[in-house]
Amino acid sequence: MMSRLAPRWPAWLFWWQAACPQGVSAQQRTWAGASRIPGPGGPWGATGTSPLVRRGSSSAFSRAPEVVLTRERYSVRRLPFSVVSEDDLAALERIVPGRVITDPEELEAPNVDWLRTVRGSSKVLLRPRTSQEVAHILRYCHERNLAVSPQGGNTGMVGGSTPVFDEIIVSTALMNQIVSFHNVSGVLVCQAGCVLEELSRYVEERGFVVPLDLGAKGSCHIGGNVATNAGGLRFLRYGSLRGTVLGLEVVLADGTILNCLTSLRKDNTGYDLKQLFIGSEGTLGVITAVSILCPPKPSAVNVAFLGCPGFAEVLQTFCTCRGMLGEILSAFEFMDAECMKLVGLHLHLACPVQESPFYVLIETSGSGAGHDAEKLSGFLEQVLGSGLVTDGTLATDQRRIKMLWALRERITEALSRDGYVYKYDLSLPLDRLYDLVSDLRARLGLHAKHVVGYGHLGDGNLHLNVTAEAFSPSLLGTLEPYVYEWTARQRGSVSAEHGLGFKKKDVLGYSKPPEALQLMQQLKALLDPKGILNPYKTLPTRT
Amino acid sequence: MMSRLAPRWPAWLFWWQAACPQGVSAQQRTWAGASRIPGPGGPWGATGTSPLVRRGSSSAFSRAPEVVLTRERYSVRRLPFSVVSEDDLAALERIVPGRVITDPEELEAPNVDWLRTVRGSSKVLLRPRTSQEVAHILRYCHERNLAVSPQGGNTGMVGGSTPVFDEIIVSTALMNQIVSFHNVSGVLVCQAGCVLEELSRYVEERGFVVPLDLGAKGSCHIGGNVATNAGGLRFLRYGSLRGTVLGLEVVLADGTILNCLTSLRKDNTGYDLKQLFIGSEGTLGVITAVSILCPPKPSAVNVAFLGCPGFAEVLQTFCTCRGMLGEILSAFEFMDAECMKLVGLHLHLACPVQESPFYVLIETSGSGAGHDAEKLSGFLEQVLGSGLVTDGTLATDQRRIKMLWALRERITEALSRDGYVYKYDLSLPLDRLYDLVSDLRARLGLHAKHVVGYGHLGDGNLHLNVTAEAFSPSLLGTLEPYVYEWTARQRGSVSAEHGLGFKKKDVLGYSKPPEALQLMQQLKALLDPKGILNPYKTLPTRT
Repeated sequence: MMSRLAPRWPAWLFWWQAACPQGVSAQQRTWAGASRIPGPGGPWGATGTSPLVRRGSSSAFSRAPEVVLTRERYSVRRLPFSVVSEDDLAALERIVPGRVITDPEELEAPNVDWLRTVRGSSKVLLRPRTSQEVAHILRYCHERNLAVSPQGGNTGMVGGSTPVFDEIIVSTALMNQIVSFHNVSGVLVCQAGCVLEELSRYVEERGFVVPLDLGAKGSCHIGGNVATNAGGLRFLRYGSLRGTVLGLEVVLADGTILNCLTSLRKDNTGYDLKQLFIGSEGTLGVITAVSILCPPKPSAVNVAFLGCPGFAEVLQTFCTCRGMLGEILSAFEFMDAECMKLVGLHLHLACPVQESPFYVLIETSGSGAGHDAEKLSGFLEQVLGSGLVTDGTLATDQRRIKMLWALRERITEALSRDGYVYKYDLSLPLDRLYDLVSDLRARLGLHAKHVVGYGHLGDGNLHLNVTAEAFSPSLLGTLEPYVYEWTARQRGSVSAEHGLGFKKKDVLGYSKPPEALQLMQQLKALLDPKGILNPYKTLPTRT
Repeated sequence: MMSRLAPRWPAWLFWWQAACPQGVSAQQRTWAGASRIPGPGGPWGATGTSPLVRRGSSSAFSRAPEVVLTRERYSVRRLPFSVVSEDDLAALERIVPGRVITDPEELEAPNVDWLRTVRGSSKVLLRPRTSQEVAHILRYCHERNLAVSPQGGNTGMVGGSTPVFDEIIVSTALMNQIVSFHNVSGVLVCQAGCVLEELSRYVEERGFVVPLDLGAKGSCHIGGNVATNAGGLRFLRYGSLRGTVLGLEVVLADGTILNCLTSLRKDNTGYDLKQLFIGSEGTLGVITAVSILCPPKPSAVNVAFLGCPGFAEVLQTFCTCRGMLGEILSAFEFMDAECMKLVGLHLHLACPVQESPFYVLIETSGSGAGHDAEKLSGFLEQVLGSGLVTDGTLATDQRRIKMLWALRERITEALSRDGYVYKYDLSLPLDRLYDLVSDLRARLGLHAKHVVGYGHLGDGNLHLNVTAEAFSPSLLGTLEPYVYEWTARQRGSVSAEHGLGFKKKDVLGYSKPPEALQLMQQLKALLDPKGILNPYKTLPTRT
């Protein structure tokens, strides 16, 4: 059910679904056509089809204006890798017969990121099915000094999964088999190319959930999620992939298969090598299989969507929430009024509560519906009564929960329809988190279309986005390094969860000291001495 | 309260504390003298005093028979490090004035592990107070090719924290300052030598808990916990230190200070270097400060101690428990009848329930006492009614919760009083977990005093211990490699949470493939090219 909350709502209001299961209110009807899946235009537009097929065949895609080549926009110098020859193509064809793609039209989509901000010029894409095939490919490329760009769902935000020049794209799209699932332990072992949403469905049917959820779930691959150490919507509850990923199989730059695909919750035998590859964005090895611990599926899920009069009230609502909801709190997201305006404007989603300067989405997940309802009810009474929240709505059934989540999850999509998007994904101290948005709004004035702030408040993670009609070096100059310097002064992170990829690699130094950077370079040199794995990514350009 | 459960107990039985707060039953009285802290004889014997002082001044310690030198028992060859000279001592004295310990009597304790199974012959121990001092020490030792053995609380199980030859002991005992604690985020930043129990007390006073708890809490240092990736009693609820440790400051072998001491929940800027040091047992760097995320303190904690008729019933009780207690389940521990016999025999702790082949300890931690009580009551009704559990007792107040926990936590201590202990810490598939104990009991017959099995069932972690009057190479030969081969056949881990240290370093290959081992050696060579950091530990002896 979903019901409107007034400051003085009666307790029964939340739980009238049994009496009125089909009841749909006016504002719910405005969402009838909406879902988590918006159709073509982004990773949010597919359910399980590979982006190569989906995007390559999308007429919307082919009509879109050409994206400027990365090497031109950013004046990158190509490193001295070999160029793919006819002999190479023949050799690769022997490794993955029938799965060497060289058709320029088919290569269009995997050369461009979904945000349409970076574009490579790869002439060949490989679609291995097994780790052994990946190993053969890398062994060959290593010997021949051919650069490689590993690609999963190509849903990243920082240009990490598209080639910069003519790197060979190694797609995990056909590595989509579930290897095993253990019904008692909840350990899932699967190939890297499994689509997150499909895994999610698979384990949910068996009473578990994947400890990771994000807007791009319909397209993103689990291997890519792990390679980028994706955070997402369940981070607050289930923590980092560094804790939930139990094992990995990785192919190293020279084609060595490193099998650390254990299914054990605990294993302290030597250095935890898999951690090197989690979050290394394919620059240290190609993840080919993943073992991940899935927690039991909560039997009761509720989502409250609330309006707050100011950011101070958002923070106080969070503190109250954490205290009163305790172990059942599974998400605490926030968005500002500008976000709501954009999802209304571009996606025709209506705001389900009174217009407010800020909105929060709170999810609870627990094992006892009655207990959770009581806890939530006590919390809502408290925040509504004290004026921290001015209006709210609550959903307890799956369909309406999805509708409320769509408001938050589809902000990225709404932004991408608003123009060129300058994206910042920052970790900041909670009490300063929104100051940067206000500051920037004042600083940019009419130079930007919109300056919006939203994100995973429970994790201290702000998504700051600025939209403009088109890419503009001068606007970029106003934004950077200003945003990074501001963040560094707060000892924040210039990439909380999106990684560095191509677009953020040169700002690493704002969050890490030179000694760390040096050690990272040494690790890269150790694991990939020829630098063939996802070059021009993650680590700063050496000067 | 603590109350005895009968198969057909009335629901009110659990909650009679309000009516009868001072009631102490017969079996509770037998525990009157017991606590988590048993006095001299192990790391369980101190509350916050450094083991150097505690052990060095313990008359019990000095009367104990001499421990055989590690290099003799295991015929280790000393590596060609320099030998500490008078000039070195003078130089070190300039770095840590007044804190260079060379008194042989004071050096006795830090040269021996608490289990009294390994013994080094270090002639000097340093007690730095700051990271800068540690950096100066390592820079000097690196230049002079002097080997170093970092030491925290010296509470490890695998001889990882004691020197093997004459390594310089660098103790973190004086690095015991809390740097900061954030009352909203729960992020604690402290020096590496803080004692876990003191940190725990500090954050609990502020409404939080350290996400790590273990029997040795009164002595172990947080730096050592992180360096060994300690698991412990809260793992089931709060997960691995790999997720909860947010940042580290580490001094590298050459004295470089690597400051990754962030307090951010999310930070995807480059490779997560801190992961290299978590669980690397001081062989890649010396951890000098830790930033750790402390979850809010649960307002309601309950502990049930139950007797089960067989191991199959233990497993079924676990599945039932996870389903019915869901998010409030915070520990599921088991122990066999032999364990109970030993804690009775050596520590005079009485069994609080009917004698049974197996016992389980279940802890719940939640934010609503009433809700938790209802959930627990439903669960107990189910397991008692179905015969999975034959008898049980429940505690809800702090003192009695500690008494029940003591039965589980003090097994290690009881074992150490039973004779020489052969310790195995294994991860195994749940359904085969106890088979190895039964198998070994049959195999060893009268050659062993006791063969016991207990551990963190919820994490698939078995502590298998065999006691004998004294160390015997022939008994060792019967146990090893048998136990490791058995574990490897189940694709288990030969060290779930204790690490490898000195005693297990050569069995790494049972749980990791050669490619992994090679990469570990490369990482060691990269980070510590002279091999001065905790030599003879973690990685197998090169042949």
